Amino acid sequence: MAMGGDGFFSRRGFLRTGAGALLASPLVSAAVPRLAAQVPDIPLPDLPAKKLGWAVVGLGRLAVNEILPAFTKSRSARLAAFVSGSPEKAKRFAQVYGLDDKKIYSYDTFDRIASDPAIDVVYVVLPNSMHAEYTIRALKAGKHVLCEKPMATTPRECEEMIASGKEASRKLMIAYRLRYEPFNQALIKMARDSSEMGPTRVIVADAGFSIGDPGQWRLKRKMAGGGSLMDIGIYALQAARYLTREEPVEIDAMMHSTPGDPRFAEVEENVTFQLRFPGGILANCTSSYGVGFNRFRAAKPRGSVELEPALSYRGLRMRVLRDGAIEERSHPVVDHFAAEMDHFSQCVMAGSEPLTPGEEGLRDLRVMMAIYEAARSGKTIRLTS
Amino acid sequence: MAMGGDGFFSRRGFLRTGAGALLASPLVSAAVPRLAAQVPDIPLPDLPAKKLGWAVVGLGRLAVNEILPAFTKSRSARLAAFVSGSPEKAKRFAQVYGLDDKKIYSYDTFDRIASDPAIDVVYVVLPNSMHAEYTIRALKAGKHVLCEKPMATTPRECEEMIASGKEASRKLMIAYRLRYEPFNQALIKMARDSSEMGPTRVIVADAGFSIGDPGQWRLKRKMAGGGSLMDIGIYALQAARYLTREEPVEIDAMMHSTPGDPRFAEVEENVTFQLRFPGGILANCTSSYGVGFNRFRAAKPRGSVELEPALSYRGLRMRVLRDGAIEERSHPVVDHFAAEMDHFSQCVMAGSEPLTPGEEGLRDLRVMMAIYEAARSGKTIRLTS
Repeated sequence: MAMGGDGFFSRRGFLRTGAGALLASPLVSAAVPRLAAQVPDIPLPDLPAKKLGWAVVGLGRLAVNEILPAFTKSRSARLAAFVSGSPEKAKRFAQVYGLDDKKIYSYDTFDRIASDPAIDVVYVVLPNSMHAEYTIRALKAGKHVLCEKPMATTPRECEEMIASGKEASRKLMIAYRLRYEPFNQALIKMARDSSEMGPTRVIVADAGFSIGDPGQWRLKRKMAGGGSLMDIGIYALQAARYLTREEPVEIDAMMHSTPGDPRFAEVEENVTFQLRFPGGILANCTSSYGVGFNRFRAAKPRGSVELEPALSYRGLRMRVLRDGAIEERSHPVVDHFAAEMDHFSQCVMAGSEPLTPGEEGLRDLRVMMAIYEAARSGKTIRLTS
Repeated sequence: MAMGGDGFFSRRGFLRTGAGALLASPLVSAAVPRLAAQVPDIPLPDLPAKKLGWAVVGLGRLAVNEILPAFTKSRSARLAAFVSGSPEKAKRFAQVYGLDDKKIYSYDTFDRIASDPAIDVVYVVLPNSMHAEYTIRALKAGKHVLCEKPMATTPRECEEMIASGKEASRKLMIAYRLRYEPFNQALIKMARDSSEMGPTRVIVADAGFSIGDPGQWRLKRKMAGGGSLMDIGIYALQAARYLTREEPVEIDAMMHSTPGDPRFAEVEENVTFQLRFPGGILANCTSSYGVGFNRFRAAKPRGSVELEPALSYRGLRMRVLRDGAIEERSHPVVDHFAAEMDHFSQCVMAGSEPLTPGEEGLRDLRVMMAIYEAARSGKTIRLTS
């Protein structure tokens, strides 16, 4: 984070901005026994019937800082195994999270998860270029898979991942955490509801941060598949799509990377892109690895509603701008990762489709390829679904 | 304003949002006599040596609500005449502002201003399609001209206006009021200064309001020359240009108007456009007659600075987003119209060029034509200066 620092917009700073105290919020303990028979007068919390066992593949910063702690808040997911290329790191975290050393897998021993009945779900938290391989291997091992965004580096890989899930009769979900947290859910509801301020006409969604260490995998084309668009701009694209519940039919885009900046030798720094949706909404989006952006706005005839921060892990805020006034609206605060893990566990247990299945990840990949194509060609790219 | 109401983003509501009390701020009276000889011990305010006489052409809402009151705050401009097609309205305002009925001109008698030595400057506040004609007639009458934005409806008209000014040896300025008020001036300074937060990499400028009465001239193609872009999106374009101090070299754009909305039968509702500047800055801009937008942001590696409201007549606010915090910065509050009138009066008196001469208006017209062309053609338009 040398260049970005721990600033408002840096991955470490901005994405984690806000209510740090939330980390200390009371948890539903996984160990609460069913005491109803003994103490019938005390109302019991609504405990989950079962927690599924999850294996986390990859122990990078996101896994360590966000995903592992989220298991302590999850009602339906239990940490069951690690897959890591670093035995020391894995052992250290196994100790912290009370996991037996036998539950540590390496990339070499990965396929043995097939015979570990304690693992129901695999959460793929690897560099983008490894998503397809490990997702497919996990599905073939009979596990359900939650895969981080972007789903893969090409639409082709996404299609193969989806096909593998179907073949194995296992579920595949993409970790679009914002779909599972109340601020974005409220924004979606308001964007799609015309009763309060009229229909949404324009969406502006800007997502970016100043990326640090030039040596990280996110800045290597082979491992990342692309630059800011694939990693952070995808949030703006997702927002435009989930706020409209439509697929874009026209795309314009421009790209620029600061010449000589070692971070952008292989992948792009900034992308601006515009999307036309069939219902007439125009979305104007920014993606950046050079500067911070963290806001989604749905603009309507009688007011606008905005999240800023919109995509941080914590501390999201909603403002309604209307009638010359700005009104802040609060919503329940949840751990985004616990929420998405719970959703997927429940889908697996209930046999239902997740809200963000592989097909959703594929759609984003297709649009992102069109954004790159629009920027390269200097032409409006027309998409048909 | 039937549809837009008096909301945050309506012309009446949003553009006037904020510190209404400013209207009651103490004025430097034009009538303060030079008493220095009699009372040498009392320090006197720095009084202007002279006020130029101004004729206001057109008594529409902008003139009546903003420009006429601004004369009471101006240090260098004095209301000297009206030009109006409505004798009753002109008489009523002449009474309010203490103007002799002889100082009321009609469009038929307009050219007689040539022989009125009390008029130094003509302020053209007419529908866009009339800017060229009345600017040129005023220049030919030997007057200096301040013309409202957009300068005209075509670059050709702008060129003729500039040529007329040169021919008549009279000054021509375009009323880009935001260049003369401290919040935008501070944003410009910060956007161009790399020392505090690094160089500006991305600009997002969004300007829009929900336009009311479908019968108004702004919605008639012949009188307006275009839709939201010409009237309000021009602020976003200006911002992108004055924050970079560069001319765009590439332009992408999309347009959309809500089908069946009577307001958009002749002119466009929404325009999104992207500009690439030679130094590498990308600007992502929105223009709307359907929804409210009122913000300019310059995004830098170590923080961002934003105005919102950015283009209201009153109540502008600046926020610096940096290091996980939002800092509000205040700047002196001025009457935008008095400030621009003072600037032009002083330029006329000093014989110097105004900050926003006709050439500046022409540049915007050229870019706006390219934005329309980009939207129509679905191609990136490349501009050469």
